[in-house]
Amino acid sequence: MAQNKRGKQSFVLPHMPVITAWASVAGKKESEGPLAQTFDIVSQDTYFGQKTWEQAEKQMQKMAMDKVIEKAGITRSQVGLVYSGDLLNQCIGSSFTLRNTGIPHLGLYGACSTMAESLLAASMAISGGFSDRVIALTSSHFASSERQYRFPLGYGGQRTPTAQWTVTGSGAALLCSAGIGPRIDSCTIGTVTDLGIKDANNMGAAMAPAAYATIRAHLDDMGRNVDDFDLIVTGDLGQLGKEVLMELARRDGLYLGGRIADCGTLVFDTSTQDVHSGGSGCGCSAITLCGELLDKLNRGKLKHILFCGTGALLSPTSTQQGLPIPGVCHAVSIMGGMN
Amino acid sequence: MAQNKRGKQSFVLPHMPVITAWASVAGKKESEGPLAQTFDIVSQDTYFGQKTWEQAEKQMQKMAMDKVIEKAGITRSQVGLVYSGDLLNQCIGSSFTLRNTGIPHLGLYGACSTMAESLLAASMAISGGFSDRVIALTSSHFASSERQYRFPLGYGGQRTPTAQWTVTGSGAALLCSAGIGPRIDSCTIGTVTDLGIKDANNMGAAMAPAAYATIRAHLDDMGRNVDDFDLIVTGDLGQLGKEVLMELARRDGLYLGGRIADCGTLVFDTSTQDVHSGGSGCGCSAITLCGELLDKLNRGKLKHILFCGTGALLSPTSTQQGLPIPGVCHAVSIMGGMN
Repeated sequence: MAQNKRGKQSFVLPHMPVITAWASVAGKKESEGPLAQTFDIVSQDTYFGQKTWEQAEKQMQKMAMDKVIEKAGITRSQVGLVYSGDLLNQCIGSSFTLRNTGIPHLGLYGACSTMAESLLAASMAISGGFSDRVIALTSSHFASSERQYRFPLGYGGQRTPTAQWTVTGSGAALLCSAGIGPRIDSCTIGTVTDLGIKDANNMGAAMAPAAYATIRAHLDDMGRNVDDFDLIVTGDLGQLGKEVLMELARRDGLYLGGRIADCGTLVFDTSTQDVHSGGSGCGCSAITLCGELLDKLNRGKLKHILFCGTGALLSPTSTQQGLPIPGVCHAVSIMGGMN
Repeated sequence: MAQNKRGKQSFVLPHMPVITAWASVAGKKESEGPLAQTFDIVSQDTYFGQKTWEQAEKQMQKMAMDKVIEKAGITRSQVGLVYSGDLLNQCIGSSFTLRNTGIPHLGLYGACSTMAESLLAASMAISGGFSDRVIALTSSHFASSERQYRFPLGYGGQRTPTAQWTVTGSGAALLCSAGIGPRIDSCTIGTVTDLGIKDANNMGAAMAPAAYATIRAHLDDMGRNVDDFDLIVTGDLGQLGKEVLMELARRDGLYLGGRIADCGTLVFDTSTQDVHSGGSGCGCSAITLCGELLDKLNRGKLKHILFCGTGALLSPTSTQQGLPIPGVCHAVSIMGGMN
């Protein structure tokens, strides 16, 4: 077996990448939520000064990328590689962000798991010595997602109780081979899991089995227990999906109890912000990580978290053709900077 | 600088991954072209036994994946990781291929550069010791692409002289840390390059600047000359894009001459098959590599190639919004198995 592989799905990082800087950009609704103070940039303009929502999403990514570069005290030309992806058809948010920047770019598609997937991929690039200063980047935008996946906003469609609210935001994390900050010690690559859920308005439930499978795989592969983590934080299962995840764990004899949190219920106040089951979208886990969570890890308020990005791998076409929603979850184990 | 990084965009592989098996699946038109004898599986049924073209594309990927596993004499459970992506919105070809297979999966989006991008990512995973037995996989389908990017086939739209024909096919390559077969010694990660071309029916010209930038970066970063390769083979520039590439090189003082080939003009006979400028799509470079090229490398008929996957990072939305077409190109340097 490969020397850094552990079990079936996990790997350790002999040279632990350090997350030396992170940045988040958020929209209006997010700036009214519980994490408002943790974002680097907030905008009350849904278009972020652009003509279209798709270009607004590009603009958010560009702002997050430039902010993380600024916070790290480097220049664009010192960035070795950007791993990024988004929800827009053909990931145009990411491609247009990198256009003519001169920065090497590898595009990812992991739906809402992209923040975790990009961290995982960046970890391999850094630890293997293939690149230096790698940025993991992603975004989502409420209006571009609604138009693409559900209905144009002008249609005024009624949202179901299980629906989630796509976060308008972008998060960027800079990984280096040395420096000060939270460190990534191991990762678990997800498998595409599908228990037959077809309701595109209930993606939390569709992703919960994938989340549980990956958490279980990480614990098994790494010989760890739930109590080894201060927090196991899923991407965007929302309130309902989080309950499904806890029930799946309970049936399997695992008590997640007070250790589990979900970015979809951290980023919004689900009782007052009219977001139904909580936040979703690539931006949901991205701005929660690249603010609140990395800040706390850096200050030693969190010592060890398992960051589990969750993605629903559907498309409007697959839904219209009557297919179920495959889910995936990638996990990244992050240690506090003051350990 | 990271120990395996070379120059600004390239890296070497201290433990060279070996491509121990490869497989290709092709459609009817491809089976009538010059490479007919090199495909493992050909089908005269455009639907590959499925109900929709999107599911046909999934089926091709599944057939290519299972074929490469069979040719390697292993089982699905012995595959450590699949890197894959495709052109369909939200990459549903790839997600549905991996669904409930239990195989760890990382999704990529690189448009038609995906075969090269997946080889490059798989090379890092193998050489860094993070996984073993990694499959690089991609596909495209003429009918699903036409419907998504241009017009539904039933519309009977007239094709422009510069248009290319999306290849119906899927290619899979298995990378291992040891074994017999062609080896990958280094890779160059592309930057997103855009010179302002907006004609979605002239993607070869839109991608040519990216192809040239990456070939130039590889030669510079690795201290190599054009003559160090038997063949520099681009993904899917087509006849027109290939001419643009050669002109860009010539103006920069580089003579590509007889060393250059393009999968879009290898996979079809452009003079008889009514494909206009040549083949395109993720499947174009995938089935050309995972047949003709790897076969020749394995038999020692080619000693060293630079495989340059080219991608046009547009979406129908970005085109409708009047934006230009960003291009990208990733290069993988492959040595013959009998070296």
